Amino acid sequence: MKRVRDIGEFGLIRKLRKDIPHAGDDCAVLPGNLLLTCDPVVEGIHYLRSTPARRVGWKAMARNLSDIAAMGGTPKWAVISIGLRASTPVRWVKELYAGLHSAARRFGCEIVGGDTTHVRNEPFVVVTMLGEAQRPVLRSGSKVGDSLFVTGKLGGSLRGRHLTFTPRVEEARWLTRHFDIHAMIDLSDGLGSDLYHLRTRGIGFEIDAAEIPANGTIHAALYDGEDFELLFTIDPRDVTALRRQWKFATRLTEIGRVVRAPGTVSFVGFNGKKQLLRFRGYDHFAKCR
Amino acid sequence: MKRVRDIGEFGLIRKLRKDIPHAGDDCAVLPGNLLLTCDPVVEGIHYLRSTPARRVGWKAMARNLSDIAAMGGTPKWAVISIGLRASTPVRWVKELYAGLHSAARRFGCEIVGGDTTHVRNEPFVVVTMLGEAQRPVLRSGSKVGDSLFVTGKLGGSLRGRHLTFTPRVEEARWLTRHFDIHAMIDLSDGLGSDLYHLRTRGIGFEIDAAEIPANGTIHAALYDGEDFELLFTIDPRDVTALRRQWKFATRLTEIGRVVRAPGTVSFVGFNGKKQLLRFRGYDHFAKCR
Repeated sequence: MKRVRDIGEFGLIRKLRKDIPHAGDDCAVLPGNLLLTCDPVVEGIHYLRSTPARRVGWKAMARNLSDIAAMGGTPKWAVISIGLRASTPVRWVKELYAGLHSAARRFGCEIVGGDTTHVRNEPFVVVTMLGEAQRPVLRSGSKVGDSLFVTGKLGGSLRGRHLTFTPRVEEARWLTRHFDIHAMIDLSDGLGSDLYHLRTRGIGFEIDAAEIPANGTIHAALYDGEDFELLFTIDPRDVTALRRQWKFATRLTEIGRVVRAPGTVSFVGFNGKKQLLRFRGYDHFAKCR
Repeated sequence: MKRVRDIGEFGLIRKLRKDIPHAGDDCAVLPGNLLLTCDPVVEGIHYLRSTPARRVGWKAMARNLSDIAAMGGTPKWAVISIGLRASTPVRWVKELYAGLHSAARRFGCEIVGGDTTHVRNEPFVVVTMLGEAQRPVLRSGSKVGDSLFVTGKLGGSLRGRHLTFTPRVEEARWLTRHFDIHAMIDLSDGLGSDLYHLRTRGIGFEIDAAEIPANGTIHAALYDGEDFELLFTIDPRDVTALRRQWKFATRLTEIGRVVRAPGTVSFVGFNGKKQLLRFRGYDHFAKCR
């Protein structure tokens, strides 16, 4: 009997997606330019029992904000489902909500409702967010020859940034308003995993080790995950204007290009040698093997 | 230090609602006649480890459909967050999704996306649903003198119906299209609890024991919960037409009336004597005291 850990998170998602034809982006795109996304956060997986509740709330909300950002959208409304132990201090829940509200308000999103339930062991927070986008940017729009960009620095987020990161909502909206962004995704599982989600038929990527804005080692930048930075592709003729007009303190780095390839990701090492990049990053179930 | 079990589910919700001014109905009402609702379902609380996965999926989806119904809405789109043990058979997840799809399709709702995470102990399923309503029916619209109606039979759902119930989507849409329904709610925690959510300033209810369509004892009908039937109020002058035009196999019963009272619910027993009905029903945290 096959178990979830045998096929891993992405194997499972592939199976489930057969019945959800339009899934595969950071948000579902609905009529009326609406974006819908949800994201579960669980104690022991996404945060520790000792993590301050306010940070748990911030993270749960910010992960969804980041998904709306990845499509170039504007966050609008959120609902919250929480599972709590009966022994949880009321103060903890109020702090959790303070964190949720704080992240939501910062980006103009309103919490409009929610539901609570009892759990015996592991508390969880599921935020579902509704946003709007005039022209949602999908994962699939890259063209051969495009330049590949990333915001911020990658790797090492487990040292604390995964709880306090700033979702790139403002950067993404600016990008999509001023430039024709071909494809975009937010880096949640790590560059070495998320880059694979931008592939389409006959299209691959080449990234340069020397260009990757790493917090620590290149390995950490590729595989740690939870960076929540933007990864996007753009016509190379727009690159000069993009660099000149970029108005954020957030770092912006060209790390590679879109190439004609059968869905592969190549990695040009510091020695100039090209090798295939392994598909790997945070996999919820594979980690449990 | 106050813990969640000390103030109970409704005490907690009251605290959290201070920062969510428009909460308090079965769904949040958004601009453009949109309805948004979410509902968590947890192993050991809403279903057992031995419950067939298809029924878990049906229940998780049907609970949300019932919330959309309670506002007189049309279900449109849903996203699913699931937390799974790594040892869960892939087949179980496929069956879960079969149940989710089955309930969604039956009522014209489309699953448009979702996310999965790993849990160590208790799996959960959170469905978030978006619906539409031309004129959403709130909980707060009752008027003194209104007749109080309920669909179906109440009580005893734990014997199996809580997993297989039919959300009253069609009945609710018909009701709101043909009549001026003043207030409506779906019975999730039990009549003895949900009726209290229909109170407004200066308004209370009187129900007749002899009229309650009980599956088993009156006590079960009042307090078991998970009936997922509709409870609504309507002008008494509309009652004759409502009875004549009602076209569903689902039972429809007038169980009482809206009275001028300071938010109390009275209960006229079989002996004709009136007594106050205790506010009680399923409370997620109070049960754990």
